[in-house]
Amino acid sequence: MLNYNKTLPDGAPGWVVSEDQFSSLALAKCEAVMSLGNGYMGLRSATEESYVGEKRNLFVNGTFNRFDELEVSELPNAADLTKLDIRIDGKRFTLEQGEVKAYSRSLNLRDAELVRTFIWNNGEGKELEFTFRRFVSLDSLHVIGLKMEVKVLRGPVNLSVSSGIDAQVSNSGSQHFHEGEKRIYDKTYLELIQTTTESKVDFAIGASHRLKVDGQLVEVAPAMEIDRRIVAVGYSLRLEEGQSLTFEKVATVYTSRDKEFGDNYSLPAMREVALAALKTAQESGYDALFSSHTAAWAKVWENYGITIESSNPFDLLGVRFAHYHLVVMTPAHDNRMGIGAKGLSGEGYKGHSFWDTEIFILPFYIYSNPEIARSLLEYRYLGLEGARNKAKENGFAGAMYPWEAAWPSDGEVTPVWGAVDIVTGEQTKIWSGFIEQHITSDIAYAVWHYFRSTGDTDFMEKYGYEIIFDTAIFWASRLEWNEALGRYEINEVVGPDEYKEHVDNNAFTNYMAHFNIELAMDYYQELEAQSPELFARYDELLNLKEAHKVWESKLNLIYLPQPNEDLIIPQDDTYLQKEIIDLTPYKDQEKVGSIFNDYNLDQVGNLQVSKQADIMMLFFLLENKFSPEVKRANYQYYEEKTLHDSSLSLSTHSILASDFGDKELAYRLFHRATEIDLGPKVHSSDAGIHSASLGGIWECAVMGFAGVRMLDGKLHLAPKLPEHWDRLSFPLYWQGKRLEVNITPQEISITNVTGGSIQLIVHGKQQEVHESATFANTSTL
Amino acid sequence: MLNYNKTLPDGAPGWVVSEDQFSSLALAKCEAVMSLGNGYMGLRSATEESYVGEKRNLFVNGTFNRFDELEVSELPNAADLTKLDIRIDGKRFTLEQGEVKAYSRSLNLRDAELVRTFIWNNGEGKELEFTFRRFVSLDSLHVIGLKMEVKVLRGPVNLSVSSGIDAQVSNSGSQHFHEGEKRIYDKTYLELIQTTTESKVDFAIGASHRLKVDGQLVEVAPAMEIDRRIVAVGYSLRLEEGQSLTFEKVATVYTSRDKEFGDNYSLPAMREVALAALKTAQESGYDALFSSHTAAWAKVWENYGITIESSNPFDLLGVRFAHYHLVVMTPAHDNRMGIGAKGLSGEGYKGHSFWDTEIFILPFYIYSNPEIARSLLEYRYLGLEGARNKAKENGFAGAMYPWEAAWPSDGEVTPVWGAVDIVTGEQTKIWSGFIEQHITSDIAYAVWHYFRSTGDTDFMEKYGYEIIFDTAIFWASRLEWNEALGRYEINEVVGPDEYKEHVDNNAFTNYMAHFNIELAMDYYQELEAQSPELFARYDELLNLKEAHKVWESKLNLIYLPQPNEDLIIPQDDTYLQKEIIDLTPYKDQEKVGSIFNDYNLDQVGNLQVSKQADIMMLFFLLENKFSPEVKRANYQYYEEKTLHDSSLSLSTHSILASDFGDKELAYRLFHRATEIDLGPKVHSSDAGIHSASLGGIWECAVMGFAGVRMLDGKLHLAPKLPEHWDRLSFPLYWQGKRLEVNITPQEISITNVTGGSIQLIVHGKQQEVHESATFANTSTL
Repeated sequence: MLNYNKTLPDGAPGWVVSEDQFSSLALAKCEAVMSLGNGYMGLRSATEESYVGEKRNLFVNGTFNRFDELEVSELPNAADLTKLDIRIDGKRFTLEQGEVKAYSRSLNLRDAELVRTFIWNNGEGKELEFTFRRFVSLDSLHVIGLKMEVKVLRGPVNLSVSSGIDAQVSNSGSQHFHEGEKRIYDKTYLELIQTTTESKVDFAIGASHRLKVDGQLVEVAPAMEIDRRIVAVGYSLRLEEGQSLTFEKVATVYTSRDKEFGDNYSLPAMREVALAALKTAQESGYDALFSSHTAAWAKVWENYGITIESSNPFDLLGVRFAHYHLVVMTPAHDNRMGIGAKGLSGEGYKGHSFWDTEIFILPFYIYSNPEIARSLLEYRYLGLEGARNKAKENGFAGAMYPWEAAWPSDGEVTPVWGAVDIVTGEQTKIWSGFIEQHITSDIAYAVWHYFRSTGDTDFMEKYGYEIIFDTAIFWASRLEWNEALGRYEINEVVGPDEYKEHVDNNAFTNYMAHFNIELAMDYYQELEAQSPELFARYDELLNLKEAHKVWESKLNLIYLPQPNEDLIIPQDDTYLQKEIIDLTPYKDQEKVGSIFNDYNLDQVGNLQVSKQADIMMLFFLLENKFSPEVKRANYQYYEEKTLHDSSLSLSTHSILASDFGDKELAYRLFHRATEIDLGPKVHSSDAGIHSASLGGIWECAVMGFAGVRMLDGKLHLAPKLPEHWDRLSFPLYWQGKRLEVNITPQEISITNVTGGSIQLIVHGKQQEVHESATFANTSTL
Repeated sequence: MLNYNKTLPDGAPGWVVSEDQFSSLALAKCEAVMSLGNGYMGLRSATEESYVGEKRNLFVNGTFNRFDELEVSELPNAADLTKLDIRIDGKRFTLEQGEVKAYSRSLNLRDAELVRTFIWNNGEGKELEFTFRRFVSLDSLHVIGLKMEVKVLRGPVNLSVSSGIDAQVSNSGSQHFHEGEKRIYDKTYLELIQTTTESKVDFAIGASHRLKVDGQLVEVAPAMEIDRRIVAVGYSLRLEEGQSLTFEKVATVYTSRDKEFGDNYSLPAMREVALAALKTAQESGYDALFSSHTAAWAKVWENYGITIESSNPFDLLGVRFAHYHLVVMTPAHDNRMGIGAKGLSGEGYKGHSFWDTEIFILPFYIYSNPEIARSLLEYRYLGLEGARNKAKENGFAGAMYPWEAAWPSDGEVTPVWGAVDIVTGEQTKIWSGFIEQHITSDIAYAVWHYFRSTGDTDFMEKYGYEIIFDTAIFWASRLEWNEALGRYEINEVVGPDEYKEHVDNNAFTNYMAHFNIELAMDYYQELEAQSPELFARYDELLNLKEAHKVWESKLNLIYLPQPNEDLIIPQDDTYLQKEIIDLTPYKDQEKVGSIFNDYNLDQVGNLQVSKQADIMMLFFLLENKFSPEVKRANYQYYEEKTLHDSSLSLSTHSILASDFGDKELAYRLFHRATEIDLGPKVHSSDAGIHSASLGGIWECAVMGFAGVRMLDGKLHLAPKLPEHWDRLSFPLYWQGKRLEVNITPQEISITNVTGGSIQLIVHGKQQEVHESATFANTSTL
């Protein structure tokens, strides 16, 4: 359905995701996949004119609100700025009527611009050429620009456009905003204030317009409208055949949560700042604003740019698509915010952060932009309070991180009720917020991963150690002694495979808890020996010495499920005893979760059916702990039983396939991972793009095909390029240094841009790189 | 745009309001004008398939809720039951695509059924005949029925329908509901619970479906869906050419405010009642439910039926349309509820009651169904508490009724901010809630009108006297002494003409206040003399003796503006000194209020421009107080300056024209009144039909053309039939007796159905009617 073969106007290939035919069924997919943003805010790409089924979303990162006590905190959908009510000779313009030619709607990834062009015949003899452009400025985080150009091919026409700020939108019916003041200054500057109902975040949204006919600014007196939750202006004009209208709209978005206002925030002051910014933007106009925006994106591509020379140009596009969305969704500007599981591209998962960030996205930032990685981990540090509360509420010690996180102090925000249970006709209870506990060790793991790769001791001393110690304290309190078997167990959990609830001794959970405690013990010894001041501080804060005694007494008694005679590690105590069914009807279906058409979750829980990678995640994160034979055997066994109904599944399988040297499989799975959002399934991304999967795409390339790994604190590189690839090059940060890695089937060359020298292991051999070095790519020999 | 010439299937004319061509611009108008209801609830007639700009509204009378402290109470928009997502061969069915033939959408007023039929070609060779039917049961107030019939003319087709209960709707963005439980019982019975956020009214909404192919029930396993604020089922089936599908949906609506639950209400109990009712309805099926519904409507027409023999059949249709909507909107079942200014047909005026009820609608009920008139006045009695609070808050004594009323205890609910001020760019402040005070005497007037026409002393003793006394107490405290002029004034008000704010001595307000006090004094004397017990009770409650002293001292000093040398009564102290402008550009425009495109309200306030009847209202209500010459002179003077931007204006002018004997003008204005909703202005009724105007249409016919009036407690009849009319007959209740009045240009015949004898004045002559009598219609001689 989507086209990936278009080039940019200057001929550059591999940058354009486009739709060549308007389809009302694909509205949601295009809105999400082509969504815009700058980390501060995200704007779903609904079309200017309205269609049934559209979803207009504007999210500002971190502005969480809770509709009522029955719902959980979510990112509220701020007032819409994108809708234009366009009338041609008095009739509402829509592509569903009349005739459409030369249609194209495309996201230009390089410039982060949304462009829609087509020729439209109204069926009554009038013909118009439309071009719509839109961007969310990466240069000026509060600015959005829109532009409509209409050329009259056959006319004349009476054209009117109504445009404004529409706060009638909600989150699927839940309204998060009080309506504030609405105002039109000088018949030009529209302002709408709205305030979230519970968290009391003020939003100041502004918009203004500029009209040109045949390139010349024209003054058209607007009809002004203030209605419920709406402020708007309407412009009407007559266009003769051959004339062109350029309609520009610039908009600004500010909130009281913006860091820049600090503690001195006041609504009147913010309104002044916002209005001034709107006036400045209005003076600049679309083109100048856009040019600063593209300059900012040029820097992004300079910093992150991956090169892939492949017989299939889609490969590079897929990776760029991932990069694009990772930039668009990540609140690089504010450490009080995390990354949503759907970024800022839809209401799905309510803007909440899951382990998706630490395990699937963080590696990209650790190796591409460590500062942002640090900011994301600081967000978790700020979440310690909520994690401690959650532990306490559950009768545990230490820090028990929420399965879903919103504003740091919100604590656990996982909703409790999900989709229909086909047997009972009630909603299925979501247990993750109660018992999907591995998130806590995933975060500790991420801290360790970041630290060992960057060497950022400042981070560790301020934030990292505290996270690792307190999560270990949680786990130690969480362990359950099995007297009969003489071991510590972790029972009644959900592991990564969410089709198995209330299981005992999920292997991933147990191993990662063990890892977490062991890690804390290592750092305990290190600090005790080398940083007595730090050690004393944490001891005072967390009663570390006592904690250490408990860790010591328990660590080696934690039950770590071992491979059976077939080398299979039981995913949990009962998985291997469950019924096996033929999953063919449920694999790779148009909609994920198709098994629930036939079974409810309880029933699925009694089958050897997995939603996603579980043991495989363990192999990926703790790869040194398992032999290649065990990995292969388990891969074989579990993959068959895995529906990949989670977008967190395919990339992990691809990386493991790379590790096994099965390039063909790895490449195929990489493709399937990119197709989670870019594939032909028309509803795959309705609720938003899949953040973890996008991080996973980068992981497939860099950690899979290039074999980049941090093992025992050392950088490893063991490329296994797909057969179709002639080159893979990418930047790589290691211990504060920027490397540029260039891999061909024959060679691996590394340039150390920062200077100094670095150690790394290439295909298992210790190497040193000063300025640059080239090594044979032995895997292909 | 709308067609009024269609007949019913049995050939009966004058019952059908229809649209013969689908137009997306007319969505809102049809939704409102064709809306359904039964007084308990109102259902806006949005089409089953969705269109941009549609508004789906389901209101249950009296279930007011306040979104937040910044908004006022309003009727919340309950979950939608009408939407069907219909897919033909996988594509969403919409009339905006493909080809439509033989389209008709009609409201059958007689049976209160909405019917839509058309043949639709999907543009890909498939052709289907659709018929949609819908009713809101008048027999069983909690029941809604929908039916879709699809006949495959050219097939085969794969058809799927998704249908359910959708609580994602809001009031233009304001969400009034917490989401409650959603449930599907036995894969058949859908249930959705929702609770208003502030008033905590529980709603239990149920729906179930039944499918027949070629008349035979078929079992199709539904796909079940529970999503945010949504519960739904989807049915898919293949239909061969020639096959017909009948898709029935029955739905039930219950709320915790339903009188029947009384004080023993509990949510589980209501859910049980609602589910049982749904099962019963499901068993009955659409046709049986519909037949009980039409039987209930047959009784309505039997009771209210007006006959008009006119050369223009639209005249009768217009009156029936008024009758229809009056029934649909009026909460005859519950005296805790009033009538909304837009009935239950749209969000306009938030379901609030204005003087519209007492002055424009109540006469219809007084003379057609006195029990309902009493219930509506009891609603005002229940509102006394709020009225007393309002008086206190404003520093007055007695009962000061709210300009806009919702739940009786809500008090004043007029919103404070309105449309844009084109000069300042801010919202215009709405002063009515503060200073449009004549509502208080309007209610006292209505009590008197009811009592004098019905002789319902029980009502007076329980409710009526108290209202009249306490409103008079208010007015006495409200009067302002003008020392210089030696008179009592009422300054700083808005009169009926809302284009004049902050005026002094609005004639209508002063006269009606005077009337109110005088009336109280009359009843004071009457009770003192004849009902010492009652007198004592009210004296104790209201300190009546003291009040009476004040009334006595003030009544004759109240300034009542008198005609000037040109016989013109100044509407207020300054009106006649204001600038006069040419109003031609603003009269009878496509949108009311067009003057605000050029002036803001302050500027309009300085012109001799009126929104609506003001002095004319006074002439209508207190007709004996003014000479015919004064009336004519003022009519002439003010009508020129009146934009009729309020729907309360034309009917009053028509009645006065009848009184003057200007039949042609009266008839023309009657027509314009019917066209407020039924005319060609495509957006006239977007926010709902105009309740007062509908009452006014009845008033034009019965109080205007038939000249029915209560004067000094006597029934007057002075018909002046329009030239086009050969007959006008209608029922008329007087002093508890049902009369049937039949007027021709020659004769007036009256049948006294109830028995006994009645006195009345026909064309100025005292008459007596036992069983029946016929009089010459002297006015035409």
